[in-house]
Amino acid sequence: MAKYQRLMDDVQQQIEAGIWPPGTKLPSLRQQVAQQGLSLMTVLHAYELLESQGWIVSRPQSGYYVAPRALAVKPLSVAISEKVDINDFVFDVLQATRDPSIVPFGSAFPDPALFPQRQLMRSLANVSHQLTASDALHNLPPGNATLRQLLAQRYARQGIMLSPDEIVITSGALEALNLSLQSLTEPGDYVVIEQPSFYGALQAIERLKLKALAIPSDPTHGIDLVQLEETLQRWPVKACWLMTTLQNPLGVTLTPERKQQLVELLAQHQVPMIEDDVYSELWNGTTPPLPAKAWDRQGNVLHCGSFSKSLVAGFRVGWVAAGKHAQRIQRLQLMSTLSTSAPMQLALADFLATRRYDVHLKRLRQILAKRQQMARQSLLKVLPARSTVTEASGGYFLWVTLPETINTIVLYQQALAAGISIAPGQLFATGDQFNHCFRLNTAWPWDTRAEAAMETLGRIMAEMAQS
Amino acid sequence: MAKYQRLMDDVQQQIEAGIWPPGTKLPSLRQQVAQQGLSLMTVLHAYELLESQGWIVSRPQSGYYVAPRALAVKPLSVAISEKVDINDFVFDVLQATRDPSIVPFGSAFPDPALFPQRQLMRSLANVSHQLTASDALHNLPPGNATLRQLLAQRYARQGIMLSPDEIVITSGALEALNLSLQSLTEPGDYVVIEQPSFYGALQAIERLKLKALAIPSDPTHGIDLVQLEETLQRWPVKACWLMTTLQNPLGVTLTPERKQQLVELLAQHQVPMIEDDVYSELWNGTTPPLPAKAWDRQGNVLHCGSFSKSLVAGFRVGWVAAGKHAQRIQRLQLMSTLSTSAPMQLALADFLATRRYDVHLKRLRQILAKRQQMARQSLLKVLPARSTVTEASGGYFLWVTLPETINTIVLYQQALAAGISIAPGQLFATGDQFNHCFRLNTAWPWDTRAEAAMETLGRIMAEMAQS
Repeated sequence: MAKYQRLMDDVQQQIEAGIWPPGTKLPSLRQQVAQQGLSLMTVLHAYELLESQGWIVSRPQSGYYVAPRALAVKPLSVAISEKVDINDFVFDVLQATRDPSIVPFGSAFPDPALFPQRQLMRSLANVSHQLTASDALHNLPPGNATLRQLLAQRYARQGIMLSPDEIVITSGALEALNLSLQSLTEPGDYVVIEQPSFYGALQAIERLKLKALAIPSDPTHGIDLVQLEETLQRWPVKACWLMTTLQNPLGVTLTPERKQQLVELLAQHQVPMIEDDVYSELWNGTTPPLPAKAWDRQGNVLHCGSFSKSLVAGFRVGWVAAGKHAQRIQRLQLMSTLSTSAPMQLALADFLATRRYDVHLKRLRQILAKRQQMARQSLLKVLPARSTVTEASGGYFLWVTLPETINTIVLYQQALAAGISIAPGQLFATGDQFNHCFRLNTAWPWDTRAEAAMETLGRIMAEMAQS
Repeated sequence: MAKYQRLMDDVQQQIEAGIWPPGTKLPSLRQQVAQQGLSLMTVLHAYELLESQGWIVSRPQSGYYVAPRALAVKPLSVAISEKVDINDFVFDVLQATRDPSIVPFGSAFPDPALFPQRQLMRSLANVSHQLTASDALHNLPPGNATLRQLLAQRYARQGIMLSPDEIVITSGALEALNLSLQSLTEPGDYVVIEQPSFYGALQAIERLKLKALAIPSDPTHGIDLVQLEETLQRWPVKACWLMTTLQNPLGVTLTPERKQQLVELLAQHQVPMIEDDVYSELWNGTTPPLPAKAWDRQGNVLHCGSFSKSLVAGFRVGWVAAGKHAQRIQRLQLMSTLSTSAPMQLALADFLATRRYDVHLKRLRQILAKRQQMARQSLLKVLPARSTVTEASGGYFLWVTLPETINTIVLYQQALAAGISIAPGQLFATGDQFNHCFRLNTAWPWDTRAEAAMETLGRIMAEMAQS
C-alpha cells in the first residue's frame, strides 16, 4: 500500500471512530509531515483525495476540517458479535408475534382474516385442475408470463410503461429487495438507507457486508433530501434502498414533488434506487399514490412489490420491475432459490385476471383506515405526557415516540411478560436513537382483548415514565 | 502489513499461480534474504507459518518445498470477469433446455410427465378447501410442523433418528444448500467440493467469495478419500459440499463403507459436511442407499433434500436436516426469502401422509432405469472410438468421456444448432479438465425424436473426431 493511501486509511478510520468529529480541525499538513515522517507531497495528496471523496473540506487560510455532517452518516458495524445481537433481537420479536396467545401489536403482518381467502382458494383450486406437468419448467425466472403481463398492466394503469420482460417474479418482496441489492453492490460498498428503516434493509446490508449511510427520515416529510444530496456528493454511493409510500415504520408518504426530486437527484448522481413499495396499495385518502418509479426516465429505479401485505401472506410471491437490471437479478435468483413456486404464480395470475383484487383492495383500505383510527384514539388515551404518535395516514402502523427516559426495549420485555408484543425502535435503526420509540400494528380487530391490552400497555408506560 | 506477512502473501500467490508447482523446491532462506532485503528472522518466520498452514513442507538438510499436492487443489478465481463468464454459460445452457423444441439431453430436470400430477393436484385442491387465513403465519421458518414431522418419519424408517425441529423447510434444495454454506462460512474461507461437481456449488462458492478446494471424484469410487484427508490436514477447511449418492454429474454412489469413512474423517477434522442428496430416491438396484448422514454421530452433517427431482419440479420445496445448525439457517432464511409458500408445504404434507409417494417412487425408479438403459445402448452405438460412458446405475444422467481432441463446448454449440442440448463438462469444473466430457439426461421418453437426435449427435461427434 502506498504511503498516501495508508495516511488516508488512518484518517478515515479516525473519523469513523469519532476521534475527529464532524466540523473539527484536522492536524495541519505540516503537523502530519512532522508526526508521520511523510513528505509534504504525500500528505497533500492524501488530503486532496480525502476532500474529493467528501471526508474532509478545506477552508482557505484555515486548514482542513472533517466534513460537517449533521446527518447521521454512520457506517454499520460489521463486527460479528454485533451482527448476531441485532438478528437475535429481530428474531425474538418475530417469534413473539407468531404466538397466537400474544396480542400482536408488534406484528409486521396484517390480520389474515382481512384477505379474500375463499376467492384465493378458488383460484388455487382452478390451478389444481389446469396445471400441466410441464408448467413448472415454464415458470422458471423471470417467472410466469401471464402474471408478469398482468403486473405490467397494473403499472400501465398508473401511467407507468414497462415491459413484462423487465419484471422478475420472486419469493416475496424480501427476495426481490435482497437480489436487487446484491446485483448492485460488492462487499464494502456504501448504500444509502433511511433512518428509521425496515430492519430487513439493515440485515441485508450486514449480510452482504455493505456500509450503510443512514439519512434521517421524519414522519411529516420523509427522507431529508438536502442531507441525501450532501451524502451523494461526498460518498461513493452504489445504491439506495428507500420506501417512498407508507414508509415502514414511520408511515410517511413523500409528496409527488418530493418523489420526483428524489428520482432526479439520484439519476443526476447515477445512483440506482431500490424502491421498497409493499404498502402502497393500503393508502388512505382520495388519490392513489404513485411510486417514485413513475418519475423514472432512465431505468434507474428497481421497484419491488408484493402481494403479502395486501392480498395473501403465505403465497410468498413478490416481484421487482428492474428494467435493465432484470437479467442480472434473474441469474442471481437461478443460483439461490431457482424460482418461485409455479402453482402460487398461476393462482395469483388467475385471481388478478379479474377485477376481484381491486374490489378487495377498496374494502381492505376502508377497514384498515377505521381500525387505525380506533387504535390511535385508544392509544392517545394511555400515552404518557410528552409522547407523540404519527397521524393515521394509511397502512397499518403507528409510530409512537415516548419521553426519552422510557427505553422501549424494556417496555417490549415488560409488555411481553404481560402477553403483548410491540416492535421497539431499536429494530429500525443502526444506533440507539429510537430507543424511546415503538411501532404499533393497527390491522387487527379492535376488540375487548385489544382494548384491555392497550390499557395494560398504558399502565406499564406510566410506571416507566414515573420511575 | 508486517514484512513477514507480505512475504507469505507473495509466496502463496506464486504457489496458487502455479509459479512454484507442488513438489518444487522454494528459494532458500538465504536466497530470500538476499533477494527481498529481509532479515533472516523475518524469512524464517514466514516460512514456518507457511509450513504450519500446509502450503510448504521442510525437508531436513534440503530446504523448503511446495506441499506435494497430487490433487487438483485449485482455489477458484473470484475475479469478476471470470465469474460473469461462467454464469453466462450456465445460464445459456439452462435457457436452451427450456425451449420445448430442443431435444433436452442437456436438461437437469426429469420428464415431468413421470410425476403423479393428478394426485398432487388433488392434494393442492384439498389444501384449497382447508387452508385457513392464519396458516400463513404458522408456516414461517422452520416451516410447516406436519411436513417436518413426515420428513422426520421418513428418516426414521431409514434408521436415522432426528427431531422435526432439526429440519428447516426451504425453497427447494438449492436454498437449503446455499443457506447451509452461508451459515458455515465467511468470505475467504476454504470449502471442499468434488471435481466434477454440480455447477450450483461452484456458483455458490463464487457468490459467497469462498475458495474451492476441488477433490477429484471418479465414476467408479466417487471422491478420493486419500486426497480429501491430505487436504483436510493441510488446509483450514470450513465446510465440505458433497453428493454421496448418484452424484451429479458422474452418477456414482459411494459404498456404505466409504460413506462411513467420509463421515468419520470429517468428524475427526471437525469439518461440517453439506450433503446434497437430491437424487437418492432414484436408486436402481435391490437396496435403497443410505445417506452419509446415517453415520453421523455428532450432528456434523447437514443433509439437504428435495421433492423437485422425484415428485414435482415446480412446488419449490426442499429441506435441510441441519441439527445444531438449524436455528442459524432459519434466521438466514427469514432475512432472505422469509419462508417457503404455505400452500405448497401443506399440499406436500397432504400427499406424503399416505403411501402414495412410495408407490410413485417404485414405478418412477423402474421407468428411469429402463430409459437410462435404452439411452445408454443408443449412445454406445454412436460414440466415437476411445470414448467411455458411465454405467446405468440409477438417477437419470450418464457421464460421457470423449477423446480429448473433442471439445464439448464446441459440440454443445453444434448440437444446439441442430436442435439438441447437452450439458458440457465445462459446467461442472473449476478448470478445463472436463472439456472433452458431457452429461446426458436419460429421463425423457426414448422415442423416434430422441433416437434421431442421438444419431445427429453421433454424426457431429464423428465429424469432430476426424477433424
